[in-house]
Amino acid sequence: MGGLWFTEKQTDNFGITMKVKRTLHTEQTDFQLLEMVETEEWGNMLLLDGMVMTSIKDEFVYHEMVAHVPLFTHPNPVNVLVVGGGDGGVIREVLKHPQVKKATLVDIDGKVIEYSKKFLPEIAGKLDDPRVDVKVGDGFMHIAESENAYDVIMVDSTEPVGPAVNLFTKGFYAGISKALKEDGLFVAQSDNPWFKADLIRNVQRDVKEIFPITRLYIANIPTYPSGMWAFTIGSKKYDPLEVPEDRFHDIETKYYTKELHKAAFVLPKFVGDLVK
Amino acid sequence: MGGLWFTEKQTDNFGITMKVKRTLHTEQTDFQLLEMVETEEWGNMLLLDGMVMTSIKDEFVYHEMVAHVPLFTHPNPVNVLVVGGGDGGVIREVLKHPQVKKATLVDIDGKVIEYSKKFLPEIAGKLDDPRVDVKVGDGFMHIAESENAYDVIMVDSTEPVGPAVNLFTKGFYAGISKALKEDGLFVAQSDNPWFKADLIRNVQRDVKEIFPITRLYIANIPTYPSGMWAFTIGSKKYDPLEVPEDRFHDIETKYYTKELHKAAFVLPKFVGDLVK
Repeated sequence: MGGLWFTEKQTDNFGITMKVKRTLHTEQTDFQLLEMVETEEWGNMLLLDGMVMTSIKDEFVYHEMVAHVPLFTHPNPVNVLVVGGGDGGVIREVLKHPQVKKATLVDIDGKVIEYSKKFLPEIAGKLDDPRVDVKVGDGFMHIAESENAYDVIMVDSTEPVGPAVNLFTKGFYAGISKALKEDGLFVAQSDNPWFKADLIRNVQRDVKEIFPITRLYIANIPTYPSGMWAFTIGSKKYDPLEVPEDRFHDIETKYYTKELHKAAFVLPKFVGDLVK
Repeated sequence: MGGLWFTEKQTDNFGITMKVKRTLHTEQTDFQLLEMVETEEWGNMLLLDGMVMTSIKDEFVYHEMVAHVPLFTHPNPVNVLVVGGGDGGVIREVLKHPQVKKATLVDIDGKVIEYSKKFLPEIAGKLDDPRVDVKVGDGFMHIAESENAYDVIMVDSTEPVGPAVNLFTKGFYAGISKALKEDGLFVAQSDNPWFKADLIRNVQRDVKEIFPITRLYIANIPTYPSGMWAFTIGSKKYDPLEVPEDRFHDIETKYYTKELHKAAFVLPKFVGDLVK
């Protein structure tokens, strides 16, 4: 097809492929293979272990939907934590909520932060905001050491392979519950219903054992497997389906709207069947 | 990556790629290149001019969403027309509605019908139902020659290249209006908002000039470009957003639900902006 193409095998037998203008950086960090490429279709793109993490053109979907659904569900999210998310996209969206006084980011791989700042400034540009506390460290340990500390926790992890494998365990969800305040809630990216039905089913089952309110919602992310991405919410008190109208305030977005906040929880039948 | 892989370039710089067990049939018909392949990930799959049309594993999304949204919007869809759709998937879904007395299918390419019956029997199996009238012919001409004939028309076309180019014109929508009864409505597949924003904008503009009620809805189809597919409804009387609760009856589906019927019209902000 001419020139350099990057192909991600999203399953053994299916993938996406895209034209690459040039490779900006390649490095085996202490945790994963980090590649930054400039693509024709999606602009600059971060790959970890050969998987698309984020791209300039479609990053807004994931980052808005991770941040705004839980943050509008909580009446007063003052202290929030992002686990993973070293590209800074979730932090950028979090800072659109004026109630947030402090946003802590804990990513295990400082190189992700470093090269996102360099090659994805549109995404990472708010990591230096005075409300943000960036820690390079193990999110699992940070959670284990936190108690009654956060209003909202957002788990922006890679897939459950490599450094993120601990972030898909019941022990992690129990730790999150302890790290949250008594009316806190969390969200975790939960892969996709087409190729990872078992993962979604297992996460829902584990979270339900710990949180009285457990919900699944979806969004369309064209560079992620199947184009349909799922997010799990576990909440101690506030139901994302029952957000009072006056809790929504205007923020600038390209994907999220207050109407979509509700519609994102209306699942296709085969997806709804996974979480029954 | 080993073995035979089929790659569809969905744009000049992006595509999907999948492992093919074997090619079942290849033929240059009078209208297009028809290929039937057996894929590892999606089962048997129909390609026209190198573009994925339908696959056994994910076909239910498209066919259910084309058929059930307009059919549940109309209080009594007795006489319906499918333009294109020679694989028979929309017809199969149409027949789940007991009010439908006659379903006419007009596909320009008899070979699509012939090889879908042979290699996609799960999809095409209802084309021989006594309520179905299959015509091999030009859908544009059939519409032009029809007057006050149909309750619901479904346009299940390929992209606006090759034989389908006439099906994306204002003249075609005017013909549909004439072919519909005075309270009729139609739906047309309208490609995707990520790569074809202009097409969606243009179709909406053209349909709005002719139909008092014009709406856009979306569904997730993993083998179609971007994974987000759009559908345009033009309606003379009934609004798909105002379907009375008692109009929904139980049908067997894997994607469509009556709740999703409404949620599918709640668009991400950048999509909603296209149709303002």
